[in-house]
Amino acid sequence: MIKDIIKLESKNFEMLLQKFFNEKKAFYPKKLADAMEYSLFSGGKRIRPVLSFLVADFLDINRNKIIDLAIALELIHNYSLIHDDLPCMDNDDYRRGKLTSHKVFGEDFATLAGDALLNLAYETILETVSKDNKLFISALILAKCAGAEGMIGGQADELDFVNPEAKDILDMYIKKTAMLFKAAVLLPAYLHINEAVYNDLQKYGEKLGLIFQLTDDLLDADQNEENTYLSIAGKEGTHSLIAKLNNEIKDLLSKYADKAHILIELAEYISARNL
Amino acid sequence: MIKDIIKLESKNFEMLLQKFFNEKKAFYPKKLADAMEYSLFSGGKRIRPVLSFLVADFLDINRNKIIDLAIALELIHNYSLIHDDLPCMDNDDYRRGKLTSHKVFGEDFATLAGDALLNLAYETILETVSKDNKLFISALILAKCAGAEGMIGGQADELDFVNPEAKDILDMYIKKTAMLFKAAVLLPAYLHINEAVYNDLQKYGEKLGLIFQLTDDLLDADQNEENTYLSIAGKEGTHSLIAKLNNEIKDLLSKYADKAHILIELAEYISARNL
Repeated sequence: MIKDIIKLESKNFEMLLQKFFNEKKAFYPKKLADAMEYSLFSGGKRIRPVLSFLVADFLDINRNKIIDLAIALELIHNYSLIHDDLPCMDNDDYRRGKLTSHKVFGEDFATLAGDALLNLAYETILETVSKDNKLFISALILAKCAGAEGMIGGQADELDFVNPEAKDILDMYIKKTAMLFKAAVLLPAYLHINEAVYNDLQKYGEKLGLIFQLTDDLLDADQNEENTYLSIAGKEGTHSLIAKLNNEIKDLLSKYADKAHILIELAEYISARNL
Repeated sequence: MIKDIIKLESKNFEMLLQKFFNEKKAFYPKKLADAMEYSLFSGGKRIRPVLSFLVADFLDINRNKIIDLAIALELIHNYSLIHDDLPCMDNDDYRRGKLTSHKVFGEDFATLAGDALLNLAYETILETVSKDNKLFISALILAKCAGAEGMIGGQADELDFVNPEAKDILDMYIKKTAMLFKAAVLLPAYLHINEAVYNDLQKYGEKLGLIFQLTDDLLDADQNEENTYLSIAGKEGTHSLIAKLNNEIKDLLSKYADKAHILIELAEYISARNL
């Protein structure tokens, strides 16, 4: 069952991440380390690093090679959540049923904890890339996907919307959410010199990210948020786009037969998730 | 005159930075790019990158090799100023006589602009390091100096102080301010395999950073800030520590004779600055 696989993979990654952070935190000021740790270990689904590992398996690439990049990706994701939750951004008091960082540690420490996680991601990236030069392309892709051309650019687009159309919202979703999924998929792709496979994976990552954001819209439906795809296309339209994206993923990956089965299943799992 | 040299160097760097950012901003959302540009070009003294170039000259290392790292360092410095000025941090409405980022673009865009500059710093670092592997050590030092063990750690220490002693404050200054000066000094040091010179430069960077922060205290004296060295040691004590640090720098660098003259003069210039 895909659900059990994800759970197990997620738990395994959780242990890797805890070991990683335990070795770092001793060198940080106590409250800063506490704030970083609080958000890093507050029930995240670890879907991005797990996705990286599944794609590594798909490409027959040793998972060990990309562990540090996958950790960096999860650090980047978590910093963005802390800053997203700040009063000046989404102003959320709760995330995954727990108080958000600024409610526990104050806005000042939440800001610094986010900055520190972002910086730590790149410390980690530089260390791993210095040991294995082949990872450079993956690291650069990740950095671009996380920055002003990618995730941060998408966050800015969302803040700045005036009467967006459905297309504008999907473009924003691709940057805000799908870019980190694309990065996750492409982390292990550096060793795979087949351009066609690389392009297929890139499309897969983007579609998967879109599905993730669209199901997020549906899960938050009771909050009646503005400027979401849901607010324009309605529930039916959103479900129908998710189904369309799943079909496109199936078409895209059908040529890889059974090898790609789990990647297709993952998209279906994300489409039906209720977490 | 050291003052004229700094001015000229600063102006030259300004042009490099403008060229660098002009090539990037076209790919960013307009308001995000505006917010990044506003803070990046609001009269900064460029003292850190200029310091890197002067140390490169001192070591007879081609400045061109470290331009991108020096740009990244300046990006990191500028992101930290934007986040420092936020209402939840120092709550400053003005910096260098101009409105701070959040007063012009709102707290949300100020947060994102800071994040985007930090991320851009590492995009730039990864690109330059991928072209010249020897820069790895410099890049890693910079990343550590900027992170939770360095600058961000110092910011956290300052937020969390309860009745600090003079020694605690100086330890915090070393992290919050001197670490980026140390990084600036060490950027070009990677090619210089002489350990003794490296160690001298490391000490120089730290002392210079301390001098910078202590003169900052004096320049902000009318604000009667708490938990500064000035608030404990008074004006006389602060001036006397600055003088002591200048003497230590002279002793440290005397063995390099005329070659180190400009580095000694720079410390004196920073000690007497009124900007």
